[in-house]
Amino acid sequence: MAEPKQERAVRTREVILTAAAEIFDEFGYSGASISKIMTRANVTQGGMYFHFKSKRELAQAVLAHQQEFVAHPAEGFGLQGLVDLTFFTAHQLTGNVLFRASVRLAVEQGEFGPSDDTAYQEWVEQLYLHLRAAREQGELLSDVDEREFANVLVGAYTGTQVFSNIASAYADLPERLVSMWRYFLPAIATSQGRARVRLPSGTERFAA
Amino acid sequence: MAEPKQERAVRTREVILTAAAEIFDEFGYSGASISKIMTRANVTQGGMYFHFKSKRELAQAVLAHQQEFVAHPAEGFGLQGLVDLTFFTAHQLTGNVLFRASVRLAVEQGEFGPSDDTAYQEWVEQLYLHLRAAREQGELLSDVDEREFANVLVGAYTGTQVFSNIASAYADLPERLVSMWRYFLPAIATSQGRARVRLPSGTERFAA
Repeated sequence: MAEPKQERAVRTREVILTAAAEIFDEFGYSGASISKIMTRANVTQGGMYFHFKSKRELAQAVLAHQQEFVAHPAEGFGLQGLVDLTFFTAHQLTGNVLFRASVRLAVEQGEFGPSDDTAYQEWVEQLYLHLRAAREQGELLSDVDEREFANVLVGAYTGTQVFSNIASAYADLPERLVSMWRYFLPAIATSQGRARVRLPSGTERFAA
Repeated sequence: MAEPKQERAVRTREVILTAAAEIFDEFGYSGASISKIMTRANVTQGGMYFHFKSKRELAQAVLAHQQEFVAHPAEGFGLQGLVDLTFFTAHQLTGNVLFRASVRLAVEQGEFGPSDDTAYQEWVEQLYLHLRAAREQGELLSDVDEREFANVLVGAYTGTQVFSNIASAYADLPERLVSMWRYFLPAIATSQGRARVRLPSGTERFAA
């Protein structure tokens, strides 16, 4: 039985997006081309242009997907949710090409036109919500400014993953995140908060 | 009087390097081309190939310059030297195109071949020396691992400048660095160390 037209279109769009992610992940924005993406996706020019008109449009669609992974990973809110989110994201960077490509595009997006920090601001917003919850749960020290620290953490995380990618293709990212938290938690968490926080494995604690 | 041949060659090399930095800074590695750089430097193909054989060689020369700026900025060693270095580097990012291009190449260097974290490791080494000095001066808390924190700081700094570049073309980088230090110092510095540390302006203190 033939696949209904609409379903086929949805599937084709996904195939193109995945192929675009693979190509952006490998070559960066400048090194990618719409013809490389067409070949990887095995679609015709007509099929491509039905969904995406330009390389820029493809990059924007890949970048827009970043929020899908940001929005639902944490099981709880607060300090533990914040820590979990950083490790969950590390996991996504190794296993999810769409997410990895979107992060590369965000870091290198000077490449594709006017600077746009939307992806960063959405992260700030997400981390801010965790920090607000942490505050309500008595996990934050009184002099922590939730919005300021959310900005600091987005910067620190961004560079930690860039460094880890270049040093080890992300193999050492979990270890680098443990180190990062070791030097942030004393500045932000109450002793109660620190005593509660666990590494994702559940076997270790950050508490001093 | 004609300029001696050797001096002229040295000058031409510098003109080419600066032009290469400008082009890498604007277009990234992939978007740059040796012909764009030749046009910017106003040199002939012969002049270019006398000094540099490929775009990759040019990028490596620009990247190698990064250490010139890392090596001599700090006036003192220890915690103050470490803090000063981060602000000095922020200043270099806005005013020094060779440095700015080298940082862009380091962040995006997946673009030009096999991953190479040399630039990052040189930073780690530099920061490590400051942290060792800070330790000797009684400025570090006992549970700080100097090498681990040097790695954390390189990651955090890298991402902070990426975020600042995209958000504000580096205009807000000093402010972001003040925030970053606000959340690192309590985790690494003794009260004695914190009381001593000053912002570059000399008018404010980080001490709580």
